Amino acid sequence: MEKVAFIGLGAMGYPMAGHLAKRFPTLVWNRTFAKALKHQAEFGSEAVPLERVAEAQVIFTCLPTTQEVAEVAEALLPHLRPGTYWVDATSGEPEASRRLAERLGEKGVTYLDAPVSGGTVGAEKGTLTVMMGGEAEAVERVKPYLAYAGKVVHVGPVGAGHAVKAINNALLAVNLWAAGEGLLALVRQGVPGEKALEVINASSGRSNATENLIPQRVLTRAFPKTFALGLLVKDLGIAMGVLEGAKDPSPLLRLTRELYEMAKRELSPEADHVEALKLLERWAGVEIR
Amino acid sequence: MEKVAFIGLGAMGYPMAGHLAKRFPTLVWNRTFAKALKHQAEFGSEAVPLERVAEAQVIFTCLPTTQEVAEVAEALLPHLRPGTYWVDATSGEPEASRRLAERLGEKGVTYLDAPVSGGTVGAEKGTLTVMMGGEAEAVERVKPYLAYAGKVVHVGPVGAGHAVKAINNALLAVNLWAAGEGLLALVRQGVPGEKALEVINASSGRSNATENLIPQRVLTRAFPKTFALGLLVKDLGIAMGVLEGAKDPSPLLRLTRELYEMAKRELSPEADHVEALKLLERWAGVEIR
Amino acid sequence: MEKVAFIGLGAMGYPMAGHLAKRFPTLVWNRTFAKALKHQAEFGSEAVPLERVAEAQVIFTCLPTTQEVAEVAEALLPHLRPGTYWVDATSGEPEASRRLAERLGEKGVTYLDAPVSGGTVGAEKGTLTVMMGGEAEAVERVKPYLAYAGKVVHVGPVGAGHAVKAINNALLAVNLWAAGEGLLALVRQGVPGEKALEVINASSGRSNATENLIPQRVLTRAFPKTFALGLLVKDLGIAMGVLEGAKDPSPLLRLTRELYEMAKRELSPEADHVEALKLLERWAGVEIR
Amino acid sequence: MEKVAFIGLGAMGYPMAGHLAKRFPTLVWNRTFAKALKHQAEFGSEAVPLERVAEAQVIFTCLPTTQEVAEVAEALLPHLRPGTYWVDATSGEPEASRRLAERLGEKGVTYLDAPVSGGTVGAEKGTLTVMMGGEAEAVERVKPYLAYAGKVVHVGPVGAGHAVKAINNALLAVNLWAAGEGLLALVRQGVPGEKALEVINASSGRSNATENLIPQRVLTRAFPKTFALGLLVKDLGIAMGVLEGAKDPSPLLRLTRELYEMAKRELSPEADHVEALKLLERWAGVEIR
Repeated sequence: MEKVAFIGLGAMGYPMAGHLAKRFPTLVWNRTFAKALKHQAEFGSEAVPLERVAEAQVIFTCLPTTQEVAEVAEALLPHLRPGTYWVDATSGEPEASRRLAERLGEKGVTYLDAPVSGGTVGAEKGTLTVMMGGEAEAVERVKPYLAYAGKVVHVGPVGAGHAVKAINNALLAVNLWAAGEGLLALVRQGVPGEKALEVINASSGRSNATENLIPQRVLTRAFPKTFALGLLVKDLGIAMGVLEGAKDPSPLLRLTRELYEMAKRELSPEADHVEALKLLERWAGVEIR
Repeated sequence: MEKVAFIGLGAMGYPMAGHLAKRFPTLVWNRTFAKALKHQAEFGSEAVPLERVAEAQVIFTCLPTTQEVAEVAEALLPHLRPGTYWVDATSGEPEASRRLAERLGEKGVTYLDAPVSGGTVGAEKGTLTVMMGGEAEAVERVKPYLAYAGKVVHVGPVGAGHAVKAINNALLAVNLWAAGEGLLALVRQGVPGEKALEVINASSGRSNATENLIPQRVLTRAFPKTFALGLLVKDLGIAMGVLEGAKDPSPLLRLTRELYEMAKRELSPEADHVEALKLLERWAGVEIR
Repeated sequence: MEKVAFIGLGAMGYPMAGHLAKRFPTLVWNRTFAKALKHQAEFGSEAVPLERVAEAQVIFTCLPTTQEVAEVAEALLPHLRPGTYWVDATSGEPEASRRLAERLGEKGVTYLDAPVSGGTVGAEKGTLTVMMGGEAEAVERVKPYLAYAGKVVHVGPVGAGHAVKAINNALLAVNLWAAGEGLLALVRQGVPGEKALEVINASSGRSNATENLIPQRVLTRAFPKTFALGLLVKDLGIAMGVLEGAKDPSPLLRLTRELYEMAKRELSPEADHVEALKLLERWAGVEIR
Repeated sequence: MEKVAFIGLGAMGYPMAGHLAKRFPTLVWNRTFAKALKHQAEFGSEAVPLERVAEAQVIFTCLPTTQEVAEVAEALLPHLRPGTYWVDATSGEPEASRRLAERLGEKGVTYLDAPVSGGTVGAEKGTLTVMMGGEAEAVERVKPYLAYAGKVVHVGPVGAGHAVKAINNALLAVNLWAAGEGLLALVRQGVPGEKALEVINASSGRSNATENLIPQRVLTRAFPKTFALGLLVKDLGIAMGVLEGAKDPSPLLRLTRELYEMAKRELSPEADHVEALKLLERWAGVEIR
């Protein structure tokens, strides 16, 4: 049976690689190697030195940014074998990934961008949505290996997966911030946030932000740390790159990035992304309740 | 049995009053009186001259703006009886409605703002969401008469219903426009709109705009006329008034109004609100497909 | 010789009334009456109880907002004589001033809005620019009394003076903030602020902000308190009202107000208006030097 | 006497090279060679094939974008001699110019970015402001050759000249557009544009836009074609790159770019940059008069 390999055992990658290990012989590598050993113990994967990753038929990466993916690829390059597939689950940059795809292509390795959505819960349950960029044939070839996926959508050529992921997160950002602005104005007029959301969620203004994020995290004041503000701002930066390709007027998404850059500076990159609304609350002098 | 009355038999009011007529003796009045007679013929309501509306225990209004409601109220004022309830389903202005409530209160008439969401489909099915502003007691008193409602939420004091409705529509506006910006950037990168939406709607960036409006109306190029751009811009203006109360920084919602004001001028107030995306398409030189 | 009167001896009003007192018999009144007595001692004006102000042929007001002007007018109303002129140097609201003009008109008093620019230095030197709104005849009639003016411009009907003043200050605000953004980006690239300004002030991007405010107050880190941030934000609010009349898309001026509202909240209403750039500096982590 | 060379005889370059030719032996080259011959006839320069440009001690370029400069440099590369200086008067990109500087440096050629401001009038009079990026020594070395300059400012390392030029033009853009918004609101209130400008230009809101561009070009409806909208939008794009380096929140400048991108699409890249206000006038339904 063909081997697979997984590089990057972070909050997302660890359980994703776990799903692979249940179904395929799986090599794992991580910068902090102790994590790889822990994974081996927990899921029966095999913790290996980086160069042995090249033995796999399909190599998965899930790293903080495309920069780290490119560095790992550079280190692996002498060892890579033609016919290998590289599935990059990183929330990365389309442009840099296209350069990486070209570089790997010279060695006969097929690169596919394959970022995911669904969060750590989806990663654990194996129900992630995967948005893939690359050749249709290659997508079909690797699909059977995506053991962590609940849904796989081939969205376009290399880089398209990253682009869709970045735009999705930009929409999350704009929907969330705008809902915060609107709810605060209502709270100021004596409308409880819960009542406002009850109406909005039965009406045309609803979004994932009003249906899930704000009721579960803001009204409760829980603000769990699931997706760092700094990472959302990074994704907004990638989205700006996607917009910059055509330079079409996109005032709302661009202003949204500016606002989250403010929030990152006034709060902290380590804050949860939903805490951005705390900056709006600070300006309003009231909380969304 | 107590009589009710309905003023304003437009696209929304006509079927709403129909639901009332099925359950209560219902007087109807309309500026174009032929519509009232048609309603009488269709639903068994009674078309009456304006002053006879005052016979009703509960008077409903559903008019274009608060201005028309105030004019009708002024004309009815000499005839109104203490103990009457006035349920205003207009998408109106909080501030002006508070003044109207005071004016009616001097005659012993209790005003409640009660705008609805759900569109003409919801009006016909009798499944509208009603957001009510006013005293809790009065809300309870009129609830049994809201025969057109699927859901009634008491959101706060007089004006609060209008405020929530305006903010809901502002969120619709921002979510829709931002989705348009994002999708166009993706289309420009070779991602089909349908594929992008398949991912977004399984992810964190989804909203009513991405789940319903864009797939049903933009991808299909159908752009049915259900809610005029000019009316959405009017509601955005009301939302600006809600924001202006506290003057808290609300850059996204305010910029959204400016953009729809541009769209209204470049397209037409009579265009459907979803057609605003056609301005973005014009700038991008491609369609969202 | 005809008497004049001056109400409101603040940082601007005190020296303005001083110029009047040098040329005309001048009655003065101030809420904190000690200031009126001090003015009498310094300039030979006559400190009087409020109702005696009505003896004057021309009554000047220079108060924080139109609200205070309206309150004083209401208190004086029973005493006012037909044929009196009311010259309002307050940076006030066009709409509310039109209502006040009507109210005063019923008593035969002619209201003119006449806000000034030139700051405390101009007030002391008597070189203020006065922008007047009202009937041409009335403007001509009062011009000889404007002893504190270096330049008088009749800009339109009642309210027009306030509108021009508010828009001028909005342009100051946008030019200043934008220059701050641009200079910070250059400083970040290793360009000294002084060098950048030397070029810009010899080029097409120059403004009062780059020619005077930033070199004199920011590069020097002096930030003298001459015009409070809170007052500029108030004027921006008035400018928003001017824009709201026609609702034409005005995205830059509207966004500018939002940004200064942020600055007012993050710094203090008492900060100088130029200190708004300190918020930009805080975000950038560097100073404009 | 050392020779100089000038590449790019457009609206700016033609008269700039003329000033050089009056003082130094000057080689000229232009893609449309007829222009070079015309220049030779008019100014006594020498029209030469591209490779002969390499004979010069100082090579000047004034081309549409950095892309054209890089192409010409690539073509010239085999011929360039160590010790040559390259003075690039193009309104170019800092980042790409730094790469070009490195490339030329390998051949011993010193690159300096030296964009100019002052327009075609300044070019003809020889009173241009030159903003230079590069080593101080190199700047001193080439200064004596800048025969078209009225003022030379060394603003920082290579790329800094381009950065300052781009930010200057971004400030021009924001000041102009904001003035347009404000003036239109005043015109709508019955204030003649001329009166409003008389006040603003004696007050704190003044800028080059209100002092020169609008009175001379908009109030007169002359709109002469001196600097194409498409070129200003290009410079705004470069300014966005400057901002992107640090990613500090810069909402006003970024929104400004979006607005000019709209104007470019709704009007034409060939329109004059001041004609952008015609889009605002279209939205307002009145002209600034």
